[in-house]
Amino acid sequence: MIKTIGVLGGTGPQGRGLALRWAVRGLDVVLGSRDPERAARAAAELSGILEGRGGAGAVSGASNLEAASADAVLVAVPYEAHARTLEGLAGALAGRIVIDCVNPLGFDKQGPFPVSVPEGSAAQQAQALLPDARIVGAFHNVSAVLLADLEIDDLETDVLVLGEDREDVAEVIALAELLPGVRALHAGRLRNAGQVEHLTANLIALNRRFKTHAGIRITGAGLP
Amino acid sequence: MIKTIGVLGGTGPQGRGLALRWAVRGLDVVLGSRDPERAARAAAELSGILEGRGGAGAVSGASNLEAASADAVLVAVPYEAHARTLEGLAGALAGRIVIDCVNPLGFDKQGPFPVSVPEGSAAQQAQALLPDARIVGAFHNVSAVLLADLEIDDLETDVLVLGEDREDVAEVIALAELLPGVRALHAGRLRNAGQVEHLTANLIALNRRFKTHAGIRITGAGLP
Repeated sequence: MIKTIGVLGGTGPQGRGLALRWAVRGLDVVLGSRDPERAARAAAELSGILEGRGGAGAVSGASNLEAASADAVLVAVPYEAHARTLEGLAGALAGRIVIDCVNPLGFDKQGPFPVSVPEGSAAQQAQALLPDARIVGAFHNVSAVLLADLEIDDLETDVLVLGEDREDVAEVIALAELLPGVRALHAGRLRNAGQVEHLTANLIALNRRFKTHAGIRITGAGLP
Repeated sequence: MIKTIGVLGGTGPQGRGLALRWAVRGLDVVLGSRDPERAARAAAELSGILEGRGGAGAVSGASNLEAASADAVLVAVPYEAHARTLEGLAGALAGRIVIDCVNPLGFDKQGPFPVSVPEGSAAQQAQALLPDARIVGAFHNVSAVLLADLEIDDLETDVLVLGEDREDVAEVIALAELLPGVRALHAGRLRNAGQVEHLTANLIALNRRFKTHAGIRITGAGLP
């Protein structure tokens, strides 16, 4: 049972947004950053938002290394910092569930596009750099804008969870389903993470065209 | 306005399924195959299913080259045959809308996995091989099983359409929305087709785990 969660890159929008929602549901969250003072400021802001909410967990700020000692660790750094951030943490993250939500995307005048990863996906890169960690891919397609707004009580999205180990995947599904309006589904092994990461480019294209914050639902009889 | 549609690889499940649904809605469809006799047999089967339905279009069988002279042409061959099929058709397909629904996937004991395409995606490979055709990617994630069963009157899926030209994309959106229960959305340029093609691996993983025929819906306020 995961009670504390560390967030590498916890000052970015995706990490902050997920941290906020998990803290609302009672998890203690440690925001990690290269710059622990920046993490402390972000933690203070989130703590302010949570003030007066009964049952909320504590949010604190720390270095990425300190954040890496939580029960489970979310990797939410920009792709450009992905390999660099994980390289130094192989020891600290050994044996832990490491949830990778990083989307390898580039942006130019024509919008977002997929960036290829030598290992196949950010999740597989994490597994290569952290051979003893339990890597699970998830939360790639959840809108940070919707996460940040606690007035929104239905995120209207499925979370596709990619991983090798069914028990680890089940833990991450439980974490995902703490978010309001989220159903989480085991959508394949890590080798099938790349397209889920890159699909965020399509959602951003839709966001721009339709001024929305797109999510996805899987349809089909017999799904949970 | 597209009134006839040619299907390259029209004897495979995706091509046949889409052909059947379009014929139901009154389009004339030419199933193409390397083996025109096989195409003729498949056309006869579909014609039998359509018999007695008022307003249905005609389904005929032909070579891939003959199918390539329709108003719009669907490419529905297995990925292994994709480049080989298109190489000989650059002249015939020049100026035409060519809809590519090919998913570059491999299968082994652990299930489906994405196969990387040198050009980035099957759709981009089609554009490279058919420089004068109007390539649009679409129909990657629609279940052939559901398409084949005319009792199913709600396919419960969005079709993500990838393309450079808004008018061509609009034509394909109109074709997609002839299918019952389908909403079609312009989800980016051709360079964002690869992940939509590969996402079919995740849907197949879900199909196997949950004994379903998965589709996807995009959520978000403001979508059409």
